[in-house]
Amino acid sequence: MIREGLILKIDCPDRAGLVAKIAGYVSEHEGNLVEFNQFTDAVRSRFFARLEIDTSGLKVETDEFVRGFGTLGRLLEAQWHFRRLPYRMRTAVLVTKTDHCLNEILWRAQLCELPVEITSIIGNRDDCRLIAEQAGIPFHHVEIGEDKEEGFRAIDRLLTKQAVELVVLARFMQVVPGWLCAAYKGRMINIHHSFLPAFVGANPYRKAFERGVKLIGATCHYVTEDLDAGPIIDQEVERVQHYHSVHDLIRLGRDCERSALAKGIRYHVHERIILDNHRAIVFPD
Amino acid sequence: MIREGLILKIDCPDRAGLVAKIAGYVSEHEGNLVEFNQFTDAVRSRFFARLEIDTSGLKVETDEFVRGFGTLGRLLEAQWHFRRLPYRMRTAVLVTKTDHCLNEILWRAQLCELPVEITSIIGNRDDCRLIAEQAGIPFHHVEIGEDKEEGFRAIDRLLTKQAVELVVLARFMQVVPGWLCAAYKGRMINIHHSFLPAFVGANPYRKAFERGVKLIGATCHYVTEDLDAGPIIDQEVERVQHYHSVHDLIRLGRDCERSALAKGIRYHVHERIILDNHRAIVFPD
Amino acid sequence: MIREGLILKIDCPDRAGLVAKIAGYVSEHEGNLVEFNQFTDAVRSRFFARLEIDTSGLKVETDEFVRGFGTLGRLLEAQWHFRRLPYRMRTAVLVTKTDHCLNEILWRAQLCELPVEITSIIGNRDDCRLIAEQAGIPFHHVEIGEDKEEGFRAIDRLLTKQAVELVVLARFMQVVPGWLCAAYKGRMINIHHSFLPAFVGANPYRKAFERGVKLIGATCHYVTEDLDAGPIIDQEVERVQHYHSVHDLIRLGRDCERSALAKGIRYHVHERIILDNHRAIVFPD
Amino acid sequence: MIREGLILKIDCPDRAGLVAKIAGYVSEHEGNLVEFNQFTDAVRSRFFARLEIDTSGLKVETDEFVRGFGTLGRLLEAQWHFRRLPYRMRTAVLVTKTDHCLNEILWRAQLCELPVEITSIIGNRDDCRLIAEQAGIPFHHVEIGEDKEEGFRAIDRLLTKQAVELVVLARFMQVVPGWLCAAYKGRMINIHHSFLPAFVGANPYRKAFERGVKLIGATCHYVTEDLDAGPIIDQEVERVQHYHSVHDLIRLGRDCERSALAKGIRYHVHERIILDNHRAIVFPD
Repeated sequence: MIREGLILKIDCPDRAGLVAKIAGYVSEHEGNLVEFNQFTDAVRSRFFARLEIDTSGLKVETDEFVRGFGTLGRLLEAQWHFRRLPYRMRTAVLVTKTDHCLNEILWRAQLCELPVEITSIIGNRDDCRLIAEQAGIPFHHVEIGEDKEEGFRAIDRLLTKQAVELVVLARFMQVVPGWLCAAYKGRMINIHHSFLPAFVGANPYRKAFERGVKLIGATCHYVTEDLDAGPIIDQEVERVQHYHSVHDLIRLGRDCERSALAKGIRYHVHERIILDNHRAIVFPD
Repeated sequence: MIREGLILKIDCPDRAGLVAKIAGYVSEHEGNLVEFNQFTDAVRSRFFARLEIDTSGLKVETDEFVRGFGTLGRLLEAQWHFRRLPYRMRTAVLVTKTDHCLNEILWRAQLCELPVEITSIIGNRDDCRLIAEQAGIPFHHVEIGEDKEEGFRAIDRLLTKQAVELVVLARFMQVVPGWLCAAYKGRMINIHHSFLPAFVGANPYRKAFERGVKLIGATCHYVTEDLDAGPIIDQEVERVQHYHSVHDLIRLGRDCERSALAKGIRYHVHERIILDNHRAIVFPD
Repeated sequence: MIREGLILKIDCPDRAGLVAKIAGYVSEHEGNLVEFNQFTDAVRSRFFARLEIDTSGLKVETDEFVRGFGTLGRLLEAQWHFRRLPYRMRTAVLVTKTDHCLNEILWRAQLCELPVEITSIIGNRDDCRLIAEQAGIPFHHVEIGEDKEEGFRAIDRLLTKQAVELVVLARFMQVVPGWLCAAYKGRMINIHHSFLPAFVGANPYRKAFERGVKLIGATCHYVTEDLDAGPIIDQEVERVQHYHSVHDLIRLGRDCERSALAKGIRYHVHERIILDNHRAIVFPD
Repeated sequence: MIREGLILKIDCPDRAGLVAKIAGYVSEHEGNLVEFNQFTDAVRSRFFARLEIDTSGLKVETDEFVRGFGTLGRLLEAQWHFRRLPYRMRTAVLVTKTDHCLNEILWRAQLCELPVEITSIIGNRDDCRLIAEQAGIPFHHVEIGEDKEEGFRAIDRLLTKQAVELVVLARFMQVVPGWLCAAYKGRMINIHHSFLPAFVGANPYRKAFERGVKLIGATCHYVTEDLDAGPIIDQEVERVQHYHSVHDLIRLGRDCERSALAKGIRYHVHERIILDNHRAIVFPD
């Protein structure tokens, strides 16, 4: 991936000449197309693309280049989104008790594998405070009590105040209310500890154990108002045997969860995902 | 695995000294224990084991050795099963239209990877006749028409007449009636073209496509009266991308189906599976 | 993939505006770009692309469109290659004794997973004759005796006479002489039964067993004059345990071999591979 | 796995009646065999077994039970090893610069997934000091300068003083001298960042990139005097594409390294490995 420049994501009704037109716009302004990914959904006749543009040779200001694209975009009846590099996405991580997913995110952020700026860690329990503090990140304990709405309004205020672009539910064990899902549509990522759509809801490892499956999994997906039904970004599985207890499944599943969540966040912050209704188009790196 | 000798599968309530007692019986009679697998289900306090016994040095007749085990078996309140090697399990394969699973079975049987004697191939359509004939195996076309029972009674008569020990549903696209499932309990293996319990029933690849999953799979399981709910023997998965159509999923899924079914049959005919209610204990090789 | 139209593969020195120019050429002539894959090797500053073009709306004859591209291609100092669809690639399969890879190819060709026309099966032993005949494909037994060159000249004559575009070594257990490798450069595919570059040469499963590896593999690659050193197309692995004998490794490895070879051929005949010296750029489907 | 009791590992020349004799000893003393794993190497005619024994019902002292086994052990010409549970293995971790493997070990130790007591972290550079300190573990910076022996003698003194049972090379970028390998034979575990035996020695990711492999890997193995040639415990792989740079391979490989090393340590500290010359027999959990 380029370190400086622009990422453009675009989707529009399919028609002949789209690649030529879009790449032509970049070329006319002497941008250099470094990576180009495209997908045409033949069934729905819709075009999706992601471009990485080296802007060092642009003959106009980057802002003007971005603004100027609007004419073409509107002509194509497109939805589009530019991201200027370098950037680090402002991200809040919501947790409850277990810390393996949080740990993974912190470690990868530190390594610069994930270009995020973690604005805060928000827990409905206090368990992850120490980890947050050791990483030098503010921790907020927001209890979700009898009146759940109250707790979520407090969380919402924190997210707004911190100008968060991405919310990661890193084994956050509360159902997020519909209004908050809607507010962060396409910007709230969850890790579910099963191979969706198998074992929706609570205690998936117990259910997996009882069903006697031979593979367990984890699913990273966008959160929507329908529980565990949002667009899937990544899924990971691990083989299990008859001698594995529920406790073993939980242990083995942690590795699936860490891996799927890390990939999901990576694709999102690198702007490698375009949502096509309930499906996630992912151009992996 | 040994080529000549005995396989013993046994399960009984757990108690101290079981391994010593069972291995002791073998040792007393100068059998040689070549492979020993054991599993104790701590939750249900039940013991499961599989033994491969080289009988070349037995100081009694093999039949007497087998018969004599009854005293110990009854003492332990065990269920047990001896299989004399070498053997080839009499197997009928039920098919409909697609032949990839059938092909896989025939190929592995020919290579002696699967010690089966395929007594016949039974199709509710005529599509697989040529393959059967090229392999030199009798093919029966049994139509499943309006009165489904009639068709299944015809199939049942064939199975009985051929003294079939194992029935393999190799993409057989009909729901087997409860009475036939019951008659072949623990001896009828199906391949379902999804990662169960996701996408039970018809058209799982279409459902998987619509859900936007990132992994598809296949599940080999014993058939019970509850559709797609029997004990799981093996599951295989394949990664898919947004650009894969339903047709692609069907193509990629074929490889999962072939692989899962072949493993499932292998474990069964090598007596490597002990059923523990709705779970399959598999000692893989 | 499209069923009718053109595939264009192209590579050239990287410069700004390449995508716009190439897609522009298609667009000008009212071709419709259905799939576009691109890769820029930043280290070597070289551009690689593959285009699928729906030609049903072309305003010129397809031949003229192809011919006309030459002007642009030369300007870009490119290498390019057009393939007209539908087509089936004329393919010869070379075998020795084992038939699992051959079987796999025949089965996938029959299913139309692999758009190949198998012109003949050539064996340096007679073992695979029956399979060839059952599939209705000519079988040639060409002995490779004391004077190996003589045998290979006979094979070469067959390939030439049959106007073969692709040669598949499906567990062909002879070292192909350099002059024949050179003649089919980029058009001869081999399956090696190890995870290259580990265990080059003969008896890789025995070497793997002796080294005590925990994963075995198979590698599908283009054949070059250096034994087992050609560009790698696909690699598959399978987990093994301490209890697996060399014989078990051979058995488990067959599945890797079949899978890797089938993928390799698929990518080649669908024109999804561009060779970049000793590396294979693969745009998978 | 049991929490209290004994693990017994044993290997001896194969003969009839071994399981009966060994299990018989446990049974006679009213120990309860909770898990029993066995492997017979038919080629070398050698027997290997691992037993988990619940000692709560033993009719003698555990020490006496262990001592008393010697009579049988000597009779069988066996090598054997008892481990009393619960225990935490005293472990030193050697590091250089990168911290991902260290991090993984610390995280799993904290979660009690790895029953180790980390006595210290020893670095030939100072980079990992902060992590060690945050985890509350002593960090020793031991420079390996011109006279490498001097550095390694200092490390050896630390290991001895701390009564270390296991040495983990967690991306320690120095070749350990033969005398130190010998001193910790079967007790020093390394993670090599390639799929051995491919890419022995330095810069395996660069070599993998240059060879154009389609899978990269990591190997966890015991350290012997022959570089990267010790018995392999676990190997993990990850699929790579033509667009992955060396830098990407390093990134993706980290996940293989973490996973393979964590599994290797787990099997070792749970006494699930028996060394059979240059091969590791692993009874996984």
